[in-house]
Amino acid sequence: MENKKNTVEVCFSPKLFPDIITNKDYIVVISDILRATTSMCVAFDHGVKEIIPVAGVDEIKRMKEEGYLVAAERDGMALDFADFGNSAFNFMTPVVKDKTIAYSTTNGTQAIEMARESADGVVIGSFINLDAVAEYLFKQDKNVVILCSGWKNRFSLEDAFYAGALAEKLLAYNNFDKDCDATTAALDLWHTGQEDIHYYMEKAEHRNRLKRLGQDDVIELTFSLNISRVVPVLDNGRLINVGESL
Amino acid sequence: MENKKNTVEVCFSPKLFPDIITNKDYIVVISDILRATTSMCVAFDHGVKEIIPVAGVDEIKRMKEEGYLVAAERDGMALDFADFGNSAFNFMTPVVKDKTIAYSTTNGTQAIEMARESADGVVIGSFINLDAVAEYLFKQDKNVVILCSGWKNRFSLEDAFYAGALAEKLLAYNNFDKDCDATTAALDLWHTGQEDIHYYMEKAEHRNRLKRLGQDDVIELTFSLNISRVVPVLDNGRLINVGESL
Repeated sequence: MENKKNTVEVCFSPKLFPDIITNKDYIVVISDILRATTSMCVAFDHGVKEIIPVAGVDEIKRMKEEGYLVAAERDGMALDFADFGNSAFNFMTPVVKDKTIAYSTTNGTQAIEMARESADGVVIGSFINLDAVAEYLFKQDKNVVILCSGWKNRFSLEDAFYAGALAEKLLAYNNFDKDCDATTAALDLWHTGQEDIHYYMEKAEHRNRLKRLGQDDVIELTFSLNISRVVPVLDNGRLINVGESL
Repeated sequence: MENKKNTVEVCFSPKLFPDIITNKDYIVVISDILRATTSMCVAFDHGVKEIIPVAGVDEIKRMKEEGYLVAAERDGMALDFADFGNSAFNFMTPVVKDKTIAYSTTNGTQAIEMARESADGVVIGSFINLDAVAEYLFKQDKNVVILCSGWKNRFSLEDAFYAGALAEKLLAYNNFDKDCDATTAALDLWHTGQEDIHYYMEKAEHRNRLKRLGQDDVIELTFSLNISRVVPVLDNGRLINVGESL
């Protein structure tokens, strides 16, 4: 019997995602480090029951009118009709416990929307649940594509940096192989910055965009490794936590 | 008067190019290191008068029938009707002196086609003419976008690596500033591999694809810095050399 390993691929922009998809089965990990995927992990840690990712503003507005709790952000700022913005701190409240939240952001929820059509599974990744996601993927024993949400289709350093961190964890398991240059590059970016993550992330454009908007209070939390054990996965269009929570 | 610097942007795939274009004036440098842009530089060094980049196979076949000398490659191999493939060694012959060559490749000529519509200028970049291109761009005093041709829209390590090398040269001049995460990443990849370029490029997928095809004889030449002073630029749809030649 052939001992074929699963592959770890990295995709640097949602726009490139259709070009990397072959006829393989794979799970997609969404990387939108600043801030959607990090904030979603924090929300699950505080007991959120489920998150409904929503790509469009019109749709999330309609869901608000239908009575949903909604988190909605565009270009770094919370939308005026929303209950929550896209900051992790918004979800550190007992208000969210056992609740369903509809969630729409500039980049992250669009990437989820794109991935769900072709993937066998969609997982929410961040630095705060790095090991928990790696362990989950190891158990699934499938190919993995790490999809960087980027910024309006452009390359984002923090999303690629996380992709490198997760790829390194996966490749340390015996059943994964890298098979694309983007994975090689992501690994080298991770190796460049891993010794001092906070210092390296000072270079990221979106980190500075959030600073200009006064929305960068989440930086310390965002780049703290493994403070969470949640594993949010898509299940019938809704994200649920199949890991642990606080 | 405001002392506004020109920007250096990197684009990791032709598919992402439409998303990085703003209303700025800019020159595009095409990076298709293995092998089109390297081979074009070698061709000009051997006295080629002009190169007509052609995106489609049907069109290049028609040009062959019209009597043009043609270079044509798909998926790493020369097309059967072509006079030349995509290897630099094909052009190291007196046959090409003062000739016009129509040229079509899997990735590089498509990237040129895409860039020419919006750019103020298109320049052919490679490791072999690194400094000559940097000096040319410095004199133009315009924004620069380094467009990585990639492999069928996917990220290619060698094209990004060159982008980092060129970005470093440009940023050493006082009139350039980087303004995107892709430039930061390309610079860090360059810094990772620059000490031993040949060793680092062993990791590139396309380097190994060419090896499997028996087309990797160009590797030594490709990663030799500054052995050429040519500067191929697009002029009315044809590439001409505005630098020096051998």
